[in-house]
Amino acid sequence: MTPALIGIDWGSTHRRATLVAADGTSLAERVDGEGALSCAGRFPASLETLVAGWPEADAGLPVVMAGMVGSAIGWQTVPYLERDTPLSDLARHLVRVNDAPAGRRWFIAPGYCVRDDAGAVDVMRGEETQLFGALHLLGRGASDGIYVLPGTHSKWVRLQGGRVTELRTYMTGELFALLRQHGTLASAMQTSRSSDAPGLQHADVASDPEFLRGVAEAASHPALTHALFGARARVVTGALAPAAAAAYVSGLLIGAEWADAHRGAASADAHSATVRVIGEPALAALHAACARHHGRRLETLEARQIQRAAWHALANEDFPT
Amino acid sequence: MTPALIGIDWGSTHRRATLVAADGTSLAERVDGEGALSCAGRFPASLETLVAGWPEADAGLPVVMAGMVGSAIGWQTVPYLERDTPLSDLARHLVRVNDAPAGRRWFIAPGYCVRDDAGAVDVMRGEETQLFGALHLLGRGASDGIYVLPGTHSKWVRLQGGRVTELRTYMTGELFALLRQHGTLASAMQTSRSSDAPGLQHADVASDPEFLRGVAEAASHPALTHALFGARARVVTGALAPAAAAAYVSGLLIGAEWADAHRGAASADAHSATVRVIGEPALAALHAACARHHGRRLETLEARQIQRAAWHALANEDFPT
Repeated sequence: MTPALIGIDWGSTHRRATLVAADGTSLAERVDGEGALSCAGRFPASLETLVAGWPEADAGLPVVMAGMVGSAIGWQTVPYLERDTPLSDLARHLVRVNDAPAGRRWFIAPGYCVRDDAGAVDVMRGEETQLFGALHLLGRGASDGIYVLPGTHSKWVRLQGGRVTELRTYMTGELFALLRQHGTLASAMQTSRSSDAPGLQHADVASDPEFLRGVAEAASHPALTHALFGARARVVTGALAPAAAAAYVSGLLIGAEWADAHRGAASADAHSATVRVIGEPALAALHAACARHHGRRLETLEARQIQRAAWHALANEDFPT
Repeated sequence: MTPALIGIDWGSTHRRATLVAADGTSLAERVDGEGALSCAGRFPASLETLVAGWPEADAGLPVVMAGMVGSAIGWQTVPYLERDTPLSDLARHLVRVNDAPAGRRWFIAPGYCVRDDAGAVDVMRGEETQLFGALHLLGRGASDGIYVLPGTHSKWVRLQGGRVTELRTYMTGELFALLRQHGTLASAMQTSRSSDAPGLQHADVASDPEFLRGVAEAASHPALTHALFGARARVVTGALAPAAAAAYVSGLLIGAEWADAHRGAASADAHSATVRVIGEPALAALHAACARHHGRRLETLEARQIQRAAWHALANEDFPT
């Protein structure tokens, strides 16, 4: 099959390149730790290295990069799209890299900046490409609904008619990592069952009673800084085993997203509609446990499959010249 | 005047010793960085060094230590008092240090462990001695009410008839420090106006519009992890000057305490009663701004004065033999 596109999910600390055929087949894939933070001053060479040996890359095959590569800490700052720009127009808003060598068709995807009616602003970079994949995989009408893209900065997005109409980001994974590495909860959390897993992602956590207790606490009492100290108070009084502290804190943090979504759900449909999570299976399992607590249906879309759908769809689009 | 007591506020990272006369006069004071965390294995020698040259220390003058010195990371674990133990009985619950040399009268104050009616547990160590000081300064009846003791772990306490009937701790200062030193908000917060001040304590912050905006955001939207990302989103979209990010985050965190107190205030009196803050002037100013936002009266009790009142009162009590 003939390669049609190279898609790169290029985050702050890692990147994943996929060589895609026009029919969506993934012909090859490469992952490395050359995130945007470590490539300052050498982005062109770093990209050439990543795709080296994929001969088609020399023949003008389009390369589309999504994520923090388009931010102020990345290769080139690409302005955000606003809420009224349809996601289906993503391809025409790709931005050509300024310092690409002659003959190279290198593009960076713009993120989205979404202002709510009260004027609050939120942003994403990279997730718009995944949502573009979901849009194409599900179809415009069927793609309406609420999406969760968990991670360091967990995104809650509402798609309506192929547009991003709501966006709320939660500093979930980042705060978990901070609490785990530093401060008074760190020693308890280090000895926990999830100490061998990165971040929140541990398959056992979703069924841990302390994770569920954290979810319930977040649902009934929104004061996170009090609940975090409560974890410490329960440890020092013997009410919480140190080994379970990380699961409890995971539950508090992920549960806080669900509690907020529940509070913010103004319309009846928002309380009943299915939530779709785009993520790794272990993280999706944690969100599934939260959904059960809140009586919501959850559908899991595997992140890698969604990303491939995005590259597939982009491979068949026309790009700016 | 004859010295009557040596009182030591001995926290995790610092300690402050006061030589007190029976009439409450502070005859001498010493502060150093020999907190409980750094004295493991050498507490007796460390105490001797602290009081060296105060000759009365050799003559059996009682030494009372309060704070983390009585915790598992301290000199000797002193069990918590429970909610039904009157604060006025503190002196009789002082615990003699096991490994004190002959002739030394060394005591550690117990903390409090308070369970609410729903079974949630909270703890304090050190603050009980400050509250004991407030009780004596104000008198039993007049001391009824709500107290805030801000800091790394901010305490909200209700005193009723000389008892600690409610206790809620917020990880305010610790979380602020974590966010300031690590992660995606750190770079903005480092360049802020408060970069020369430790923690949240900067006199200018209380009148900073971004501090007040953070307080208002916390009052209307309790999802802290979303609001924290919102600070980042506002910085990257140019809506928040990096120099003001620390003030905004201060407002979110301290404001979260007030929002929670407001939500939790079941009785009408709790909405109208004066809140007393026991703290340094700069931190008290931040709480005063929060009180104004919530339409509450605030009375400031200077922390050092309260601590001296505690040592004064203890100097006139009988201790366990």
